[in-house]
Amino acid sequence: MTPQRAYDELLRLSRDLNVFASCADLLEWDEETFMPPGAVAHRGEQRAALAGLLHDRAVDPRWNDLLAAVEGSALVADPDSPIAATVRELRREHDRQVRLPRRLVEEQARVTTLAQRAWTEAREESDFSRLLPHLQRIVALAREQAAVSGHPGPAYDALLDHYEPGATGQAVASLMASLGAALRPLVQAIAAKRRPRAALLKREFPVDRQRLFAQAVAAALGFDLERGRLDIGAHPFCIALGPGDTRMAVRFSDRAFAEGFFFLLHEVGHGLYEQGLDTAHAGTPLGRPASIGLHESQARLWENQIGRGLPFWKHFFPRLKNVFPEALGTARLDAFHAAINRIEVSPLRAQADELTYNLHIWVRFDLERDMVEGRLDPKDLPEAWRAAYRARLGVEPASDADGCLQDGHWAEGLLGYFPTYTLGNVYAAQLIAAARRDLPDLDDAMARGDFSPLLLWLRAKVHVHGQRFRPDALIQRIAGGPPDHAPLVRALDDKYRTLYNL
Amino acid sequence: MTPQRAYDELLRLSRDLNVFASCADLLEWDEETFMPPGAVAHRGEQRAALAGLLHDRAVDPRWNDLLAAVEGSALVADPDSPIAATVRELRREHDRQVRLPRRLVEEQARVTTLAQRAWTEAREESDFSRLLPHLQRIVALAREQAAVSGHPGPAYDALLDHYEPGATGQAVASLMASLGAALRPLVQAIAAKRRPRAALLKREFPVDRQRLFAQAVAAALGFDLERGRLDIGAHPFCIALGPGDTRMAVRFSDRAFAEGFFFLLHEVGHGLYEQGLDTAHAGTPLGRPASIGLHESQARLWENQIGRGLPFWKHFFPRLKNVFPEALGTARLDAFHAAINRIEVSPLRAQADELTYNLHIWVRFDLERDMVEGRLDPKDLPEAWRAAYRARLGVEPASDADGCLQDGHWAEGLLGYFPTYTLGNVYAAQLIAAARRDLPDLDDAMARGDFSPLLLWLRAKVHVHGQRFRPDALIQRIAGGPPDHAPLVRALDDKYRTLYNL
Repeated sequence: MTPQRAYDELLRLSRDLNVFASCADLLEWDEETFMPPGAVAHRGEQRAALAGLLHDRAVDPRWNDLLAAVEGSALVADPDSPIAATVRELRREHDRQVRLPRRLVEEQARVTTLAQRAWTEAREESDFSRLLPHLQRIVALAREQAAVSGHPGPAYDALLDHYEPGATGQAVASLMASLGAALRPLVQAIAAKRRPRAALLKREFPVDRQRLFAQAVAAALGFDLERGRLDIGAHPFCIALGPGDTRMAVRFSDRAFAEGFFFLLHEVGHGLYEQGLDTAHAGTPLGRPASIGLHESQARLWENQIGRGLPFWKHFFPRLKNVFPEALGTARLDAFHAAINRIEVSPLRAQADELTYNLHIWVRFDLERDMVEGRLDPKDLPEAWRAAYRARLGVEPASDADGCLQDGHWAEGLLGYFPTYTLGNVYAAQLIAAARRDLPDLDDAMARGDFSPLLLWLRAKVHVHGQRFRPDALIQRIAGGPPDHAPLVRALDDKYRTLYNL
Repeated sequence: MTPQRAYDELLRLSRDLNVFASCADLLEWDEETFMPPGAVAHRGEQRAALAGLLHDRAVDPRWNDLLAAVEGSALVADPDSPIAATVRELRREHDRQVRLPRRLVEEQARVTTLAQRAWTEAREESDFSRLLPHLQRIVALAREQAAVSGHPGPAYDALLDHYEPGATGQAVASLMASLGAALRPLVQAIAAKRRPRAALLKREFPVDRQRLFAQAVAAALGFDLERGRLDIGAHPFCIALGPGDTRMAVRFSDRAFAEGFFFLLHEVGHGLYEQGLDTAHAGTPLGRPASIGLHESQARLWENQIGRGLPFWKHFFPRLKNVFPEALGTARLDAFHAAINRIEVSPLRAQADELTYNLHIWVRFDLERDMVEGRLDPKDLPEAWRAAYRARLGVEPASDADGCLQDGHWAEGLLGYFPTYTLGNVYAAQLIAAARRDLPDLDDAMARGDFSPLLLWLRAKVHVHGQRFRPDALIQRIAGGPPDHAPLVRALDDKYRTLYNL
């Protein structure tokens, strides 16, 4: 078989596999949005069956034969070419899959379906014991996954590398520590000042109107609702079920406008990335997001760098007042802007401000790394969580519901995933700094309600490449340097020194 | 392999196959409820991929080996035993599948996904030409399916037999003609009388309250909303996605209360059947509905025999008035009951009364049979439709949107399906007559709001058996005679002679 024919066949296999993977994604979307409680056991069977099927297809020996026929050929002579990148990523994924026993994949699917339901109940009743057996099983399976992965580093790194190719536990630990060291004096300085009042955000914002406003904002930022949806889900997420089918879910509460709205912007950022991928490459690596960290950078960029900025609200604040005249009729833009940027140390990640957010992630990173590497028994998680919050944030949750049960990631089987949130913040700051260099009138355009210059820039610089470049190489291309937390620290320092008169 | 081991393995294969089939069902449910328009092409790929997979598994030679190891053994010596029935149905399904080429199955899945979208647009714009190429392809594929099926009868019978085992085009034609001959004089006699006013049903019934009332009625009749859902869909349907996951969709319009409410009762009837199946047999023939006609009988029974009767409304009418005091504050039960039983010849099936409904089905049966057997070219369908409506109902649709584009069944690939609606009416009349013999105080219980005696009776007599008995054998067991349209004619005659003073 010629290398070209082998390559064409690889693309076909990849697209076929992706169609089945997207069926599994629909099961997941449904589970998070509309599935009735009685369906949970059968859903576990469905997810396990599809996971097993996907695994069988991913480990088919044909992949290796075809990859071997292309690797070393003239087709991939230029390692930066689209074809070489496609082959690199298909090889990476195939090697990962062949090392995973089918039994492990199926059991992870089954266990996490039951664990998610258990987590929901555990959180509702603040009863960690209902989650514990599931969490123990999930950690054990993750350790098993790391052990068979062939990754040369520590167990945690094997998991992390799946979400963020090339990242290591040690490098992330160092980044977290440096970032923490830079941010904590800022948080302390703010704590000594009088904080802006945020009462106006706690007024009554009827949920149905929040939903309509959210749809309008999503559309104004460029999210195509004909090629996607916005739903209500127990926890916010975005999932792409195929080209033309990107779905977001958020939740609204009538006395927590900011929470719901920034969930929305976050998910819109994810959704714009998915909708910006090149559909010509759908189902193959060049049609997939570069990494979870890059994905998160898009969410963070719209949520924080754009959505908590003045230019954004110069356009949207008058519109927001029109939709909620009872709550905001007399409110002023500067007071609103100060309120949405209020810094407040709390035990809850999901509503955290953009400054302390990274400290929340630091806690999770430490604890999940310790669990995966056997230094922390899951049964001791609640106490370790409280201790870490005291040490890193100086607060302690009143209950496990507001402590180690607040996030569903671990119940979903996501271990090694949390650091991508902070990596996303780091990348986002580097990206927006580069965008501002390229687009000097960006703020004016946004203040006029024109978000297309930024979206087109992101599409051209980030979205359209898919997995052509590794995360660090992509950041290097765009920002002119490697991943670096300095731009994030600088941006936060500048912003909050001004806002709080430090 | 012992017959017992072969049988156990057959059950395992059946359950495995069913898990994948239920993933395909979720794709379908989503397509009808929430899928964004841009997803249609990818959804076609997903459905085709799963249809191909299901077909591959269904034609696996292991089925034949295992079936052969059980057939003729002592395990199936009693043809009425549960095991014999399971083997009979697995054999029937396997033989059907091995005769279907994989290419045909995949193409049907792909074509019908595109056709459904085209039908929606064609109906919106009353433009048959947008559906025509899809319909031609669907009819051609159906003819191909019939040709390879091995069914000894005419092409149409091969399709019909899939939905209603044992039914033939000739027998259905004879039933339709007899029923038509019995009903048309009744329709004509009613046309000569003054009809009750139905204006109160066209008053303003806010959709959000209709939805809440619908949920309450579904629950009161015994539908378990923890093991199912009620959604809004472009056209009403019910689908079971697995044990504990039965989903209904209906549509409401604020000035068409009766339409939405009887859609609901119809789908609740389907849903109660699915929820009444024995979960111990889930994924195997004894855990599946006996036939489409039997399924329809459950829908028709709750929609018409129960839902258009006085005892039902003795309980629900005061509650309905409480929910819609503006529309019904001064309305009387007898006027309401007369209004929901108003007979009106119209070109539209979905809103048809229970009398003329069967004449609508007669038209569709004739036309689809003629298309499948090559006597009617799909391009001539609009004119043939109008001619048939003039002949059978004495009315003509003003447009194709209200004519041959009103139903989506053919775009879904459902040819040979329509007659099951009338078979359902026939069975339902036989079942309710038997229930009344067994439950002498049925009407009193319903008037008190207790629907459990009827539901328990249906579960014991119909639901719990799954496919243990063929449709005609099941009717024979319960009604003491073969399928027969006389009880339906008698019931309609009694009811409408009273209501209209004939």
